[in-house]
Amino acid sequence: MDDQHDSVRAVYWEDDALHLLDQRRLPAQEHWLQPADCQAVAAAIRDMVVRGAPAIGIAAAYGAVIAARARYRAAPAAWRDPLRADLETLRQARPTAVNLAWALERVAARLEDLRGDPEPALLALARDIHRQDVAANRRMGELGAALIEAGSGVLTHCNTGSLATGGYGTALGVIRSAWRAAKLSAVFADETRPWLQGARLTAWELVRDAIPVKLVVDAAAAHLMQSAQVQWLIVGADRIAANGDVANKIGTCTAAVVARHYGVKVMVVAPASSVDLRTPCGADIPIEQRPPAEVLQLAGAPVAAAGADAWNPAFDITPASLIDAIVTERGVVLRPDREKMTALMS
Amino acid sequence: MDDQHDSVRAVYWEDDALHLLDQRRLPAQEHWLQPADCQAVAAAIRDMVVRGAPAIGIAAAYGAVIAARARYRAAPAAWRDPLRADLETLRQARPTAVNLAWALERVAARLEDLRGDPEPALLALARDIHRQDVAANRRMGELGAALIEAGSGVLTHCNTGSLATGGYGTALGVIRSAWRAAKLSAVFADETRPWLQGARLTAWELVRDAIPVKLVVDAAAAHLMQSAQVQWLIVGADRIAANGDVANKIGTCTAAVVARHYGVKVMVVAPASSVDLRTPCGADIPIEQRPPAEVLQLAGAPVAAAGADAWNPAFDITPASLIDAIVTERGVVLRPDREKMTALMS
Repeated sequence: MDDQHDSVRAVYWEDDALHLLDQRRLPAQEHWLQPADCQAVAAAIRDMVVRGAPAIGIAAAYGAVIAARARYRAAPAAWRDPLRADLETLRQARPTAVNLAWALERVAARLEDLRGDPEPALLALARDIHRQDVAANRRMGELGAALIEAGSGVLTHCNTGSLATGGYGTALGVIRSAWRAAKLSAVFADETRPWLQGARLTAWELVRDAIPVKLVVDAAAAHLMQSAQVQWLIVGADRIAANGDVANKIGTCTAAVVARHYGVKVMVVAPASSVDLRTPCGADIPIEQRPPAEVLQLAGAPVAAAGADAWNPAFDITPASLIDAIVTERGVVLRPDREKMTALMS
Repeated sequence: MDDQHDSVRAVYWEDDALHLLDQRRLPAQEHWLQPADCQAVAAAIRDMVVRGAPAIGIAAAYGAVIAARARYRAAPAAWRDPLRADLETLRQARPTAVNLAWALERVAARLEDLRGDPEPALLALARDIHRQDVAANRRMGELGAALIEAGSGVLTHCNTGSLATGGYGTALGVIRSAWRAAKLSAVFADETRPWLQGARLTAWELVRDAIPVKLVVDAAAAHLMQSAQVQWLIVGADRIAANGDVANKIGTCTAAVVARHYGVKVMVVAPASSVDLRTPCGADIPIEQRPPAEVLQLAGAPVAAAGADAWNPAFDITPASLIDAIVTERGVVLRPDREKMTALMS
């Protein structure tokens, strides 16, 4: 917590327990949960208590600690196979973000040579994943902010801040760093339907951290860019394919298409753990379909007439051809393609 | 009311009174208002009891009848100047839709040679405007549907149906006609933030009229079009400039940019009364800014943190270059420009 522009943390481990800020209740309430077992951690991921690809990965790593404790207590000589089943439960909580699988693979690899109580080693690993994420975000913040000319306006989509990561944020981390460097004329945030992560989370985070923000409806992108109020669209990623295609919150590709049309540049900010070289291109990324009720209802009350249906994909794929820069802690890839992404990750 | 696909009317005159379906309460309640005076009609327009450019024009024409009755009763020999002031009150209720000004100019012109009680003549004129609107919509329905190939999916934005017009609808009228002609594989409707006219109104109207509809969040446009589920984007217009630029609900231009990117065709459907040859191009159309609270709150409760701001333009401008067809009751203009629009209107 170095300054007023970085005061928020939504996932942490303390007193032998995982603490999760229930993001579904923001901004009205700051309610914290302590999931008691692996199933509760998986439910928290599935039900979006915790969301954002890096934050999900970190929560799952801590979830593995909770699972290991229970399995070791239940069967000190035979905890390994049940724990592997728990990791699978966690992995299946959400399909699109690759950080979840990435974190659990690190956990699974660490298990192999463990003898005795696995908890201390897994806790050390989870803390490591968490610490590395924050460090990576700060590095991305610097790298991304360096791409932005002073006096620029920026638009972001969804929430990619401290709430979506171990802390500081990816796209929102770049905005934090650029704001601190006095480079930004204005920060616009898409409200990001249907979950309104922009309105509920990004605005909350930025207001808390003393960075002025103007919300816009997602569909205002063209009017906003037409009027030359923004020079960069800055977004996160749930998964980046080997060719640089990006899966991210529904609406990202729409905003990127509009940005390209108006000459606004597109920056994707994500840790290297979001890059999945085993996924050749965007078409190979599974897109989670969420319940129609998320569109048909508002705050639990029906907004559409009974009998109406909804199509509710949670993510879309932005092709590499629409992206000007992918920023990771390993460096910046301009105009990404397969070759450059492979070089970045090697 | 010729069939099951055209059962809705939201504005009508009966028993010497204007009846307005309060669209703010749909779909939960079907609540009707009878504005008692000209100020109440202006408030109903400003507060979006009635919305949609053609419906606003019709409501204002009936509002002039109510105003004329009051002014004539108050001063049978001197109603003309006060009534002109009332027309100005009505005209200022909303700035972007040109149909409002167009209808009131017809009223003002009719006033010039009236002697005695103006009410019967103005009522006849209002009924005429209303009837002509429905007839124009049916004609546009035919013309627009003829452009659509069988088996097409369509996406529409906002509400342009019976609720937005005298009846049948503009863009939604084309969808009604195309549905009746069994040409449509699917009808998608943008929910249309911030007022959710798509979710609240279009879905209600289509469910009532037995046309299946799938709602999507506005920002899903790219994912929807990428997946080839729609071949036409069909929208209305609040004003069409002399060069074919179109002012319509915020998000229309965003959807049109995305449509062009994916080879989806764009159809704008509006009566000739929406064409304003005195407005040279889109940049000359005033864009109504609405209160930030419409974005910062949901159903009256804050959704964003206190301290967050919002930028809330109600309309955007889609340039003629992104439009494949403008459909009016006078005919179809393909790839609109100044010359073709002038020819259409001459």
